[in-house]
Amino acid sequence: MPELTTSPSPTSHFRQPIATLQRKGAQVSILDQTLLPFRSERRVLASLPEVADAIRAMRVRGAPLIGATAAYGVAIALASEGGTDDVLERALALLAATRPTAVNLHWALDRMARALHPLPPDARGARAWAEADAIASGDEATCAAIGANGLQILADIAARRAGPLRVMTHCNAGWLATCGAGTVLAPVYAAHAQGIDIEVLVSETRPRNQGLLTAWELREAGVRHMLIADNAAGLLLARGEVDVVITGADRIAANGDTANKVGTFLKALAARHAGIPFYIAAPHSTLDFDCADGSRIPIEDRGGDEVRTVRGLDRDGNIAELQLAPEATAVLNPAFDVTPAGLISGIVTERGVAEPGRLRDLYPECAR
Amino acid sequence: MPELTTSPSPTSHFRQPIATLQRKGAQVSILDQTLLPFRSERRVLASLPEVADAIRAMRVRGAPLIGATAAYGVAIALASEGGTDDVLERALALLAATRPTAVNLHWALDRMARALHPLPPDARGARAWAEADAIASGDEATCAAIGANGLQILADIAARRAGPLRVMTHCNAGWLATCGAGTVLAPVYAAHAQGIDIEVLVSETRPRNQGLLTAWELREAGVRHMLIADNAAGLLLARGEVDVVITGADRIAANGDTANKVGTFLKALAARHAGIPFYIAAPHSTLDFDCADGSRIPIEDRGGDEVRTVRGLDRDGNIAELQLAPEATAVLNPAFDVTPAGLISGIVTERGVAEPGRLRDLYPECAR
Repeated sequence: MPELTTSPSPTSHFRQPIATLQRKGAQVSILDQTLLPFRSERRVLASLPEVADAIRAMRVRGAPLIGATAAYGVAIALASEGGTDDVLERALALLAATRPTAVNLHWALDRMARALHPLPPDARGARAWAEADAIASGDEATCAAIGANGLQILADIAARRAGPLRVMTHCNAGWLATCGAGTVLAPVYAAHAQGIDIEVLVSETRPRNQGLLTAWELREAGVRHMLIADNAAGLLLARGEVDVVITGADRIAANGDTANKVGTFLKALAARHAGIPFYIAAPHSTLDFDCADGSRIPIEDRGGDEVRTVRGLDRDGNIAELQLAPEATAVLNPAFDVTPAGLISGIVTERGVAEPGRLRDLYPECAR
Repeated sequence: MPELTTSPSPTSHFRQPIATLQRKGAQVSILDQTLLPFRSERRVLASLPEVADAIRAMRVRGAPLIGATAAYGVAIALASEGGTDDVLERALALLAATRPTAVNLHWALDRMARALHPLPPDARGARAWAEADAIASGDEATCAAIGANGLQILADIAARRAGPLRVMTHCNAGWLATCGAGTVLAPVYAAHAQGIDIEVLVSETRPRNQGLLTAWELREAGVRHMLIADNAAGLLLARGEVDVVITGADRIAANGDTANKVGTFLKALAARHAGIPFYIAAPHSTLDFDCADGSRIPIEDRGGDEVRTVRGLDRDGNIAELQLAPEATAVLNPAFDVTPAGLISGIVTERGVAEPGRLRDLYPECAR
């Protein structure tokens, strides 16, 4: 098990191959993720409704990226409509309603409200841009710190073996989901930047196929990767074709039990069976010290359409949807599963790497 | 662990909702499986080239069904071209070349050759039809016996609990793949026929989505079922939403290690973690006593297109294919995985149920 470590300063700066979110004066431009991995198009958001719509329609996705985009939405509203209480409250309410369950969105809007409320209306505009910039660059710094901490793990494993370092991951928690290098993939990009020969095994991640986003962003970043069906993970781990598994987290309970995209738990079981280390990488915003263990984490059931249908490119290169099973087919579609702390080798955050049961050592201010 | 049992006589006769293979005079009609689960169409095979093409193009699939279809192909050739050595040899060679790795195909053709070679040419025609009929009805009897043996397991579990019996399976080894009730699903149909309230959790089985065939055939047979993404299996087992897992086998080694469709091993791991029984159901033709253990079983890698693409119905109700990942995306696509004997509660064959390490007790004539 890893030692508890403190955060080293990031050793290399990751530059997003395509900016997920870019401020340009009084508007922002985003990479439209509803078209990925099939088409790469930018979209300018110049008004509050455009920002709200982009979040609602998942043109921006990934908890950290949604938070930063919403913060800019507040700044855009104030820039065009003025800094009155009325404008501020309407902007906060509209943006908060876009994705009601996204924790990071609400954290970012709360931070904007705390920064702007005490100020007189005519001082709010400039401060809103500054605060949104700070949220975005703070996210970038968080990614860089997770990358540096996770890099130590990858470098240690790489040093003990010949040939490329083979990392298996699940879902997408890379640069696409953040303002920086990502969370899970930040250590991968840090290792790649240091010249470590690295290859990522990317699990398709049915039903929503976020693994295809991961394959796309790794290609854009020039990191070697192989796409696999989710079902192949067990065999590849058992055959010794993987050196380490790293996934993200949607919520980490106080005891280290971790909810993440459904399918994560199966990889953790197979990694344990094969004696391969299994790590979680996530920012502190996913830690929930009020939740004692995984049995208290509610699991969202997302309905059948995600399983009954699939999106891809048709022969003409257009994005299209196919039906896999008739509408009448009953479907059970839990979006997350819970990996017990006992299967997790360590949790990488921006403060360091902790054993799952010793998370509070990294966050003493959260100890109760 | 289950006791070693002997085969009871089948207690109920399963009738295929739609015949997979039907002899009509000097020709056969098949259910065209290339159109399933999207369209249900029959196709008449009236000549040797038509039979060979149907097997090659996977219009018939499932090892037992391929074997019986090939046997009828020999009879069709002899009926139209006469029973000379030349006609017989050409038919056997053409059919054997359709699916070079299908063990059951070669077993059926060898049986036809042994039955026909000793006979004078003019006696071969009638005997070919009789032998093919015997192969088909033998497969039906094998399915019925597996069903009766597996039924004991399901009935025991059902008797110990309230509410529906929830069976999880993977891939397709049902009536669609055989001339009878199937292998894995035969016990399910037997339980359903006995009035046991049963529900099947059907895993999509990427990359080829054979779970969609399973959902289709269960619907045709009137058995309640729920479709799940392969990734959901771990959570559902951990939450106690499954009472037993049953899958098929492509090859079972002497020690009980079992190769089956990729993803089976992950379900076995999750079942063991949750304390849920995990069974294999398969005919004796999948037992390989010459193979000491799972490490000797070669695993076919099927190339990337299966993972990079998906088939389904478009908006107009036509069968279409979409691209999920660009052609340049590297893919690792092992078709099978190996479940260690230690994770298997029992192996159900037409002779009974054995602990994985005691398969030879069921087949003493195979002991070395």
